[in-house]
Amino acid sequence: MSVRPVFLFNSTQERAAVFAPAFAADLPEVDFVTDAAAVEADDVRYLLTWTIPQDLARYRNLEVVFSIGAGVDQFDTVGLSPRVALVRMVEDGIIRMMQEYVALAVLALHRDLPAYRAQQEAEVWRALPPRQAEERRVGFLGQGMLAQAAMERLKPFGFPLAGWSRSARSLEGVESFHGADGLGAFLARTDILVCLLPLTDETRGILDADLFARLPQGAALVHAGRGPQLDASALLAALDAKHLSAAMLDVTDPEPLPAGHPLWRHPQVIVTPHVASVTQAGTAARAVIDNIRRHRSGEPMIGLVDRARGY
Amino acid sequence: MSVRPVFLFNSTQERAAVFAPAFAADLPEVDFVTDAAAVEADDVRYLLTWTIPQDLARYRNLEVVFSIGAGVDQFDTVGLSPRVALVRMVEDGIIRMMQEYVALAVLALHRDLPAYRAQQEAEVWRALPPRQAEERRVGFLGQGMLAQAAMERLKPFGFPLAGWSRSARSLEGVESFHGADGLGAFLARTDILVCLLPLTDETRGILDADLFARLPQGAALVHAGRGPQLDASALLAALDAKHLSAAMLDVTDPEPLPAGHPLWRHPQVIVTPHVASVTQAGTAARAVIDNIRRHRSGEPMIGLVDRARGY
Repeated sequence: MSVRPVFLFNSTQERAAVFAPAFAADLPEVDFVTDAAAVEADDVRYLLTWTIPQDLARYRNLEVVFSIGAGVDQFDTVGLSPRVALVRMVEDGIIRMMQEYVALAVLALHRDLPAYRAQQEAEVWRALPPRQAEERRVGFLGQGMLAQAAMERLKPFGFPLAGWSRSARSLEGVESFHGADGLGAFLARTDILVCLLPLTDETRGILDADLFARLPQGAALVHAGRGPQLDASALLAALDAKHLSAAMLDVTDPEPLPAGHPLWRHPQVIVTPHVASVTQAGTAARAVIDNIRRHRSGEPMIGLVDRARGY
Repeated sequence: MSVRPVFLFNSTQERAAVFAPAFAADLPEVDFVTDAAAVEADDVRYLLTWTIPQDLARYRNLEVVFSIGAGVDQFDTVGLSPRVALVRMVEDGIIRMMQEYVALAVLALHRDLPAYRAQQEAEVWRALPPRQAEERRVGFLGQGMLAQAAMERLKPFGFPLAGWSRSARSLEGVESFHGADGLGAFLARTDILVCLLPLTDETRGILDADLFARLPQGAALVHAGRGPQLDASALLAALDAKHLSAAMLDVTDPEPLPAGHPLWRHPQVIVTPHVASVTQAGTAARAVIDNIRRHRSGEPMIGLVDRARGY
């Protein structure tokens, strides 16, 4: 076993071109390697990847697996030793893009952009009655770092904000709900629902007919969590029944959304192709280097996943 | 001439239903009247209206004409005595709606919503390369109250901001340009151009082929000023030549935009039917009452128009 630990980089060449010089400058004590065949497996201490490689067992001295994305639901961690730390990507670029996307989506639904899109297609000039921000209650499913950052961008507009999560949170200027008991009251006061939950067994399919029925009539959905959380048929039925007014979806199941899928064609649905927030190489490299330093000095890493909880 | 001055209200019944109780409660010394036939013309000191009535000369003791809208370009002021004060509507509701619309439009263009709308129509799932907010320079034509308020909502996102106006302004966190000499440098550094200028003889047709040519390749336009400021043919030509990338227009010439107009059909143009910001009766009543109090106590009114300048 070499004295120099290896960081094995398993992502795109474009990102490697940004990571490599950052590691050389700021973490010279770690070897940055992109070619798995070029290293002794026993030297690999850190792995950055989107999915767990099939030959993971080779890396017997692996200490940390870094996800290149904000979630870790794409990882099949069954074969991953419990002594290996799993870290999701928490970096400024992801956070800033999500702030933009959620602000855009909430404002688009608040200001009736789907209806105006339909009117534009029909070449109809007709003003719809406006609603004030203080009358438009926005609620977040998920109160983690991304949700909190997005809330900060919405606060100045004056939307009444609430959040729901599994366990209790206390956020300034946000009405917080938690647990199964708190979900009904949270949904009943939410006009625009923003889903930013991680994908776990508990959240799979959470956006279903029952949940939509508990939202007030005319409510709208922003979905920037994970595709399998949404029952698309239930959403389409709620829209067609005019119980929900509109939706802006960045994630679907499956992805890519296949041509011919009814979500593409619904006049009250805006679809974007999983672009709300993507890892930015520059800020991601800084975040990973910072986390390796923390790990090596015994400090807690940012974004460390609770393996039992799944996020 | 009566001892009680009359406020003649010439707008919708819906707004009158909000204004009347506000006047009764907060300005009882002024008679609030909606029926011009029911008052002595000589008693009318204040008029709130969208256009100048043809029989304006009847109101010989008129002191102030209040516009129900943010602009006064709809007024034919030729017959209006110079001693009558002209006041545009400056109220919180208008300002908040414009903040929302400009933030929505800038984020929509920044995040390629027109291109994703076209992809959705074609049922194509394809991510476009993202650009960071700090690389997206936003520039405002107009640095008045509405522009300044909109800039405040954009600042937290990190867009580099600039503004241009006829005379020099100094705004915190905003690179300011002014006059004909400053226009070229302002346009050359602007990726998303937001027009919030008042309509005057100088700004009529300002958004023309020459101006678009001075923007960088790929720039986009948000137009929330007045329709006659935009040369629609020049915009369409600049979009078709790929010099401009997209536009979001809330005002057109004429309004309503007629069916069959090419602006409706351009894939890179989002049209909304002059809904960016409309006067909100509740906040407007407070603003007008406050201005009448100021006028009666000799203080300067908010939104007083410089008749020579035209805004």
